[in-house]
Amino acid sequence: MAKNPQLNKNGELIHLLSTEGLSRDILTKILDTAANFVSISNREVKKVPLLRGKSVFNLFFENSTRTRTTFDIAATRLSADVYTLDIARSSTAKGESLLDTIANLSAMAADIFVVRHSESGAPYLISQHVAPHVHVINAGDGRHAHPTQGLLDMYTIRHYKKDFTKLSVAIVGDVLHSRVARSDIHALTTLGCPDVRVVGPRTLVPGDLSQMGVRVCHTLEEGIKDCDVVITLRLQNERMSGALLPSSQEYFKSFGLTPERLRWAKPDAIVMHPGPINRGVEIDSAVVDGPQSVILPQVTFGIAVRMAVMGIVAGNEA
Amino acid sequence: MAKNPQLNKNGELIHLLSTEGLSRDILTKILDTAANFVSISNREVKKVPLLRGKSVFNLFFENSTRTRTTFDIAATRLSADVYTLDIARSSTAKGESLLDTIANLSAMAADIFVVRHSESGAPYLISQHVAPHVHVINAGDGRHAHPTQGLLDMYTIRHYKKDFTKLSVAIVGDVLHSRVARSDIHALTTLGCPDVRVVGPRTLVPGDLSQMGVRVCHTLEEGIKDCDVVITLRLQNERMSGALLPSSQEYFKSFGLTPERLRWAKPDAIVMHPGPINRGVEIDSAVVDGPQSVILPQVTFGIAVRMAVMGIVAGNEA
Amino acid sequence: MAKNPQLNKNGELIHLLSTEGLSRDILTKILDTAANFVSISNREVKKVPLLRGKSVFNLFFENSTRTRTTFDIAATRLSADVYTLDIARSSTAKGESLLDTIANLSAMAADIFVVRHSESGAPYLISQHVAPHVHVINAGDGRHAHPTQGLLDMYTIRHYKKDFTKLSVAIVGDVLHSRVARSDIHALTTLGCPDVRVVGPRTLVPGDLSQMGVRVCHTLEEGIKDCDVVITLRLQNERMSGALLPSSQEYFKSFGLTPERLRWAKPDAIVMHPGPINRGVEIDSAVVDGPQSVILPQVTFGIAVRMAVMGIVAGNEA
Repeated sequence: MAKNPQLNKNGELIHLLSTEGLSRDILTKILDTAANFVSISNREVKKVPLLRGKSVFNLFFENSTRTRTTFDIAATRLSADVYTLDIARSSTAKGESLLDTIANLSAMAADIFVVRHSESGAPYLISQHVAPHVHVINAGDGRHAHPTQGLLDMYTIRHYKKDFTKLSVAIVGDVLHSRVARSDIHALTTLGCPDVRVVGPRTLVPGDLSQMGVRVCHTLEEGIKDCDVVITLRLQNERMSGALLPSSQEYFKSFGLTPERLRWAKPDAIVMHPGPINRGVEIDSAVVDGPQSVILPQVTFGIAVRMAVMGIVAGNEA
Repeated sequence: MAKNPQLNKNGELIHLLSTEGLSRDILTKILDTAANFVSISNREVKKVPLLRGKSVFNLFFENSTRTRTTFDIAATRLSADVYTLDIARSSTAKGESLLDTIANLSAMAADIFVVRHSESGAPYLISQHVAPHVHVINAGDGRHAHPTQGLLDMYTIRHYKKDFTKLSVAIVGDVLHSRVARSDIHALTTLGCPDVRVVGPRTLVPGDLSQMGVRVCHTLEEGIKDCDVVITLRLQNERMSGALLPSSQEYFKSFGLTPERLRWAKPDAIVMHPGPINRGVEIDSAVVDGPQSVILPQVTFGIAVRMAVMGIVAGNEA
Repeated sequence: MAKNPQLNKNGELIHLLSTEGLSRDILTKILDTAANFVSISNREVKKVPLLRGKSVFNLFFENSTRTRTTFDIAATRLSADVYTLDIARSSTAKGESLLDTIANLSAMAADIFVVRHSESGAPYLISQHVAPHVHVINAGDGRHAHPTQGLLDMYTIRHYKKDFTKLSVAIVGDVLHSRVARSDIHALTTLGCPDVRVVGPRTLVPGDLSQMGVRVCHTLEEGIKDCDVVITLRLQNERMSGALLPSSQEYFKSFGLTPERLRWAKPDAIVMHPGPINRGVEIDSAVVDGPQSVILPQVTFGIAVRMAVMGIVAGNEA
């Protein structure tokens, strides 16, 4: 069996690159740790001194204010020192290679690199070349993975639905282009969820996705029928191209989640979305702002989950 | 009487959107609180733990390095954690609405939003939609208001002249385009200043400004005659357009504040300016750097005033 | 003798503008102080409360992610509050003069300005106009000086070679355009290094550099023969122009440092580079990653040296 690049020889998490290949124990440990950072009374995330004196570098080769800010908050709430590098304007512009940049940053006494990159695999490449004291966390790479988003989705589902082994979960939308969907599917499967469905038109949800152990549905009714959880995905217009893809209007007509259609799911089903939302494209405003939406709690839980991941990897040695 | 959106039901300040509508008691409380943050011996601003563990978000939809930096310093000196969002590059660029962005940021455990926006009313709109635990501070919106600048001007005047009820204050320049002038006028009037004048050419100081309870003057001599305080405003070339407006040279010839003209005011009059200064346009260098100028103390006091506002709103519940 | 603008009347360091004109005692004090910040066991830089409550402003008029980040880390490890100003977008864009910007920032309770500027002399000009409580550190100005890089080079040399008075040091490459070379030469000479050579083609290493007390060599073999230290410089394509300058390929052919050529130096010679590196232009990858390279330790030591400089100047009064 090939060595998992996310684990040390004791099987402990030292980098978070993907939810794929992580055991149920490790996923559960992350969720349990995150729960410790959320105060029960008011659902607020607490500040703790776990990473005092440690240095977290935000390396965003692809821009994302939302994800960058939540990592910044998470690291600050762990009392770490946070440095955000404007990579686009950095030495890479002077012809320095990615790995030389990484080696230099390692030498600046970094403890954690949070890496966002448009190329799938960049965080993995970096994790293979950092100094042993540096931990790499993937904050989204190409179409590959967005593991902290996957984990915060798991936290949210567990918070509202408790037991994964009895749930039906539908992931609706542009699954083909979604690193979030991929991270969700791996985590749900590992956590024992017996019924995961991917839902959308054939252009966005090709049939061979069934190889990931999920059910492929091409109508919304079949897809969310009696589900406990509906995860809607952003229609990523900016990543799509080609004549086969639906227009926003066409998409909404067939797959947009309205209050009426949501009745196909269980009455107490929760609705999730990784944001940013296109209101009126993949989801109706009445659902976003309705009683079944847990979209804003996802954001809050995301900070606790990122704190948990950083706290865990920083505590393990390569 | 319509509810004041800046106050809770006990009449306490929970958002700072404008100096308009704030009572003399509230304005005085802000100035008194600010005074506590300035050490008497060396006029230095002290660091205090008042907002330790709280999160302040700088949301600058319109760029302003100067104002953003002073809020950053003020929040840091209150021991808060400060996050600065590069809004222009954020999710709003992906089509997310302002209110969805605000809802997301609220969910990230924000305590204070400092908002700068080119549209008048944007901070008010945001204050109507934030979660109850979030306080909004207007850092300048369109031509509407710049209340912390108004308050630091009041602090400066009180520091040097003590009693507002005996003062003549002249505001000279581009009053029409100035949110600073509007915030100053409301504050001065409420604090009991009996003689507030607005001074400039008809194109920049239209006669109907007299409706705000101020005297309109179209010559500099009449405008600053025997004044205690002369507030010069920046000629905002970048906001102006049209053939009726004066050139910089024409403006200086008629309204530029020179040492000779300053003699029209009282001998101990102080000269203020919100910055950045156009030397040789609205004010002569010899005045900027002269003995009556209190322009740099304004900057120092601005930090204490912003600390006071953040400390006060964060202590009151919606 | 003209007063040294870097020293107060007691001869103590209050600004760091250049290594030129600093005594051996002051240079040695900086290196000794830096040594205190590096833990002996693991070469890690420690966090100390020396500047708690102080404000450090990063004023980068010329962009440099690498240098800016190391100053940010150094100030944070001294427990200072760090503010980074995006000068390009600041009030200078509204026509405010450099000195007005500086006066305003001084009034914001600054303790240290870290200044990077494309114009030689800008940090000096600023140091002549700041309030007495503000200390200025030059983070690179034009072709003039980069004193903290010079000092971290001295720290690295002393760490590996102990006694400057017995060393031969070669500085190879684009000396003409290099503020690093200038800062290194002044420091090496003052610290008693008896044999400093500058090495490169006549277009980049003109003969009149010998006026600085160094030996000018136009072949690599002569230049690094029996040296203890080889400092390679970046070929600054972005600063060069003109038909007389070598192409990257030509340069590498004559002066690129390969493992074979490195044998001309002493067997235990160390190889340094200020970064960012052009692999295959001024230096071969096998040397960068080889056993004699101390390029990454330079980065680590740079943080300790910058901490030392900030700690020392902040402790002295103007």
